Parts: sequence; structure tokens; C-alpha cells
Amino acid sequence: MNSAIVTIGDELLGGYTIDSNSAWIGRKLIDIGVRTVWKSTVPDQKNEIVNALAIATEKADVVICTGGLGPTRDDVTRDAYCEFTGAELEMDEQYLKKLRARFERRGVDMPESNRSQGLVPDIGSVIPNPKGSARGLSCSIDGGWICILPGVPAEMKVMMEETILPELGQMSTNDLFVINIRTTGVMESKLHDLLNSTMVGSPVSVAFLPSFSGVDVRLTFEDKAALEELSRKVYDLAGKYIYAEDWVTLEESVGESLREKGLTIALAESCTGGLLGDRMTNIPGSSDYFLGSVVCYSNEAKMNLVGVRKKTLESFGAVSEETAAEMAAGVRQKFGAHIGVSITGVAGPDGGTEAKPVGYTCFGVYFQ
Amino acid sequence: MNSAIVTIGDELLGGYTIDSNSAWIGRKLIDIGVRTVWKSTVPDQKNEIVNALAIATEKADVVICTGGLGPTRDDVTRDAYCEFTGAELEMDEQYLKKLRARFERRGVDMPESNRSQGLVPDIGSVIPNPKGSARGLSCSIDGGWICILPGVPAEMKVMMEETILPELGQMSTNDLFVINIRTTGVMESKLHDLLNSTMVGSPVSVAFLPSFSGVDVRLTFEDKAALEELSRKVYDLAGKYIYAEDWVTLEESVGESLREKGLTIALAESCTGGLLGDRMTNIPGSSDYFLGSVVCYSNEAKMNLVGVRKKTLESFGAVSEETAAEMAAGVRQKFGAHIGVSITGVAGPDGGTEAKPVGYTCFGVYFQ
Repeated sequence: MNSAIVTIGDELLGGYTIDSNSAWIGRKLIDIGVRTVWKSTVPDQKNEIVNALAIATEKADVVICTGGLGPTRDDVTRDAYCEFTGAELEMDEQYLKKLRARFERRGVDMPESNRSQGLVPDIGSVIPNPKGSARGLSCSIDGGWICILPGVPAEMKVMMEETILPELGQMSTNDLFVINIRTTGVMESKLHDLLNSTMVGSPVSVAFLPSFSGVDVRLTFEDKAALEELSRKVYDLAGKYIYAEDWVTLEESVGESLREKGLTIALAESCTGGLLGDRMTNIPGSSDYFLGSVVCYSNEAKMNLVGVRKKTLESFGAVSEETAAEMAAGVRQKFGAHIGVSITGVAGPDGGTEAKPVGYTCFGVYFQ
Repeated sequence: MNSAIVTIGDELLGGYTIDSNSAWIGRKLIDIGVRTVWKSTVPDQKNEIVNALAIATEKADVVICTGGLGPTRDDVTRDAYCEFTGAELEMDEQYLKKLRARFERRGVDMPESNRSQGLVPDIGSVIPNPKGSARGLSCSIDGGWICILPGVPAEMKVMMEETILPELGQMSTNDLFVINIRTTGVMESKLHDLLNSTMVGSPVSVAFLPSFSGVDVRLTFEDKAALEELSRKVYDLAGKYIYAEDWVTLEESVGESLREKGLTIALAESCTGGLLGDRMTNIPGSSDYFLGSVVCYSNEAKMNLVGVRKKTLESFGAVSEETAAEMAAGVRQKFGAHIGVSITGVAGPDGGTEAKPVGYTCFGVYFQ
């Protein structure tokens, strides 16, 4: 079973809002074996929405559509749904009562514009919205299924989880399995060449997903056994670059092994300005192993705060293995940690030289 | 002039990667008066990419397409471009030489798969990529214009800014003007009520765009004079919340005023773990005013590194105004900065109490 996602809204096209809804929906669908094959974003215009629904229903068994269900006049998704399905709108007086009551409880009269949210099409069914006034719509059409949800993430998510995903989970034959293998310290192209021989023979679909912290190798296939066989081969060929599976981050897996071994860590950062500490402390419970860090941008700071020797800075420079080593040793002692880690580099845009161009970076690890 | 954006990649459909590229592109295009009318995301499949290009060129004057230009076998955008434009691929031996040389400088042999990045179509022109090996492609077709760029954000952005946007800026009739006014420290609804009276009368379209660091008030209109008139009113009514215009970030504007005034700053971070330092040092040239920071997660670190008194921690706790004040004073002295700033809070998920729930945060500023 596969799906198409249509997100509606001028703010998405103008880039004022980043469309994180469709990514969230895509992940949730994969988890129940539904593969998203197409996504589109269209403006708040009836004909554009109708066109998108036409393409989407042609491409996929399930169409999830978000946005444009609000009370204001630029919300036209309900009308587009009617035009596409041939439905007529009727007023759901009972819901309108509830809606009025909800506003009264908040001590305000219901704005007239909210009346529109009481309108329901006579084709398909209404999807309850426990977090807002914009209810969703769904209907089967030519053997496919269309769901319309509000664009507000909190409302969309609870409606997906309470109504759509359970229903889809039953429909889905769950014929799709995924193994996401995370690597770091190896270029995409090199990884590709390492694994090429195994991929060529295999029916499993393999995607290389480079990101800031490494390259994910994602294996997707209908047959779990074949998937796991290829996965084993990936470990055989590229094992030394693999740090985790699924969505475990680099900092999570580092944190796990520190906790397992009962070790603590402290950082001395220069060019990264605190980024490494930020990443490490984003992990809940990181205070078990992360003692702290010093961001020493200037030479003075490197000397005064983590005890780098003046002589070292003078003879080798702030960006040098020698300085990195003393930073790691110094910060480790300063915090009384088991491990000290340091980064010093030429962050740019200026400050690069022939010998040490922008991007030139030295690391230090002190472990006793 | 209007545009369509096509983003390519299974990782976008599966939701493993959030498509922030298209939002960035949409904003940049609006700035030069180009309105994005359609967006679509398709898998790494030639026919799907070709279909998307067909729809996009029908809907818009300019089509910006990102992704699928990498060296691996799942990168097929180049082939799709050829099929759509009727171009043939030829090997650019000269570029291949350069590419090999680039790898050699890094002391590695060029992986065979990178050869594919030397292939260029015989229709259209190549867009240089100063940050990577995947070059872009562009061509005019039926009076429209197609640009193909890599999906790696850093590469896509520099290619947009150095090549695409300047060319488009000349083509664009620029019939759309935008003023983006950035506020912080005020709720969207309060800001809305503050400005309501002026908006009602005005033909200018006003959007409120809440984000992590504040609420942007975005004014869009065809008539520049009317736009600037409304902008002045926004300043009159909400001036004290405004820190910048366009896309200037909070840390950029803070950095600017520090540089203007010739002041230096040092940070003591607890719950933020280095995030503030990271944000401040993301600004080129920040070393002019940013001396460094100390991330002191533990009480020991707060005492040993920034001189918070044991007594203060015992009587008021690590998350208290008193501790924040001593952290700010201590770190300022430690780095010899003009200004010391501190943050200490209950980051959660655990550690919250009745009196100091998760999210409770204290700040300190020491300025002499």
C-alpha cells in the first residue's frame, strides 16, 4: 500500500513555514508499511487543491491532505473536497451547538466565521478533532482513500494517531520493512563503492542518505529475510563506520557507551563555539556523564581556562595538534572528568592560511 | 514571474529528512518578487522526476529542482534532466581532472562512482558548485527556465545566491515587495491586537509568522509606497519589540551592536549546554566580541570555573536568580569581558519541582 501527501497553504509555498507535517506523516506511514510515493504543496486555491487531489489519487491508495480547514475565508479545502467528491455541504447543528458552548466556556461569543466549521459534506465521514474546532474529513473514492486534516501540527498529529493510523494499520498489508544503518567518518561515494558489489545482486532497495553527522544506508524491502541478509553484508563490509541503527543519533550512542562504562567527559571547544556541548546535552540524562565544557575562543582563554602553555601557542599556533592535546588534558583536569575532548580549527570565513586553510581542524582526546 | 519547486529524494518522502530547502528557496524567491505557486516532492525515480518537471514547467516560469545529483546509483536526476530536455550526457574530462585533483589534495584516490559527476548534458549550461563535486544544470525550455541543484543545503544555497538568484533578479519584473519585520518578547496574539487597527484599513497583506526566536510581521504588496507607510505604523505601535528586518537573526543584531559599541561578552551556560555560544559564534567575525563561555552543568563546575559560592548554591539552589547573578559576574571576570551573561534552568525531562517546574529558567547579566 502506498500514499500521497498534499499540504495546503500559501505560507508553505512562501517558505514562511517549513513543512514538517508531511515529514512526520511520512515516517508514521512507513512504520505501518505504507510508502509515500508523492508529495505536493499547493496554494489556498480551490482549483489547485482539486488538481492536486486528482494527481494524488491517481498515484496512491491513500491520500493525506493537511491545511485550509480553518474558519477564515482563505480556508477553501472543504470546498475543494466537495468539488472533488461531488459532495454538498450541510450544517451540523449539533456540532455548532458544541462549538458555541466551547467558546462560551472561554467567556467569548463565537465569531461568525467559526460557523463554517459546522459545515459537513454529505459524502464521506467526519474525523473528530480533540484539540481544535476544525474537524477532518475522509472518504473512499475509486478504491482509494482520502483524508483531510487541519494543518496545525498538534491537531493533525492527534487525529492521525487516534483515527487515521489505526484504520490504515488494519488496511495495510504491512509489506514493507526498513533497516536504517547509520555510519560516520566515511564519504558517501566511498561507502557506495564499498557496498556496490552486494547491492548490485540484491533486490533490496538501498538509499544513501548523507547528513551532517554521517551517511545513513537505508535498506527497504518487502521480504524481511532478504533485508536482514543484506544488512549483515553491510556490517561485514562497512562495520567500522557503523555507530547505530534506526534513529539513534551519534550523541545518543556516545552517551550510551559513556553511561555503560561509567565514564564522565568534559569538552574544550574553540571553533565549534559550544555546538558539541549543545549536541551532547540535548540527550535526556546527559548530566550523568557530561560534566561541562569550556569555549575558549581566544588564546588568553585557552591559557587561563584550560591551561594551554603560552609556549605551545607561540610555537605551534592555536590551531595545532599540540594545542588540541593540551586543551583536552587541561579541560579534563579542570572538570575532574575521565575523558577530555577538544576541538580547535579555522572556522572561517576569514583566518585561513596556505598551511592551515579554512576548515583545517585539530582534535584532542585525553583519556586516563 | 512565478516559480515551482521540485525536491527529489526518497528520504524526503519517507520523512527521514525535513525539506527545509524548498522553504529557504521560497523565501529567497519572494525577496526578488518571484512567487512560488507549486511544490512537489518525488522519489529518486527517473519517470517520476520527468513527470514532475512536466507539471512544474506547465505551472510556472521558473522551476527550481533540488536533489539526486550525488555520485551514487540512486541519484538519477541527471538522467531525468536528459530525458526531459532531450539532452545527451558527455564526459567533461577537464572537470574530471579537477575532481581527481581535489581528492588527491585530500590524500585520497577519487572513488570510481564520482566519475558520474563529470558527466554533463549537451543541452543547457552547468552551474558551478563552489562547495561540492555535484554541479548544477540549467536550461530554457518553452519560454520557461529549469534549474537543477544538489540537495545538500550548503551547496544548494551558495549556488542559488551566486548564480540563480542574480540571474532571476534581472529577469524578474519584481512586481511584489516584501518587508519582514522581526520582533521578539511579544506573543503573536498581543502583537496582532497592537497592529489590528492599522491592518484593517490597509490593502497590504500582513502575515504573522511565529518562530522559535519571536514573531515576524511580514508585509507583502505590489505598491512599495503603501508598504512602507504600513511599515512605519508597525514601528510606531510595536517598535520596542522589533530587533531587525528581513532575515537578520537575533544573534546577528546582538553581534552588530556589540561591535558598534566595542564591547566584549562571555557566557556561563548551564541548561543550554553550549547552545547560546554556538548561536553567537555562528556569526562570521564573532571573535571580535565573543570571548568564550563556560558550560557548567554541575555545582562543582559552577563553583570551580565561574566562582559561584557554595553558600549561594546551598541556600538558593543551582537554578536561582542568585546563582545566575554570580555565574554572570564570575564568567565576566574569568574572561575579562565587558559583559557576562548566564543561563541556568530546569531543562527536564526530569528534575522539576513544584516551586521550580521543568522550564523554569533564570538569567543573569553583569555589565560594568
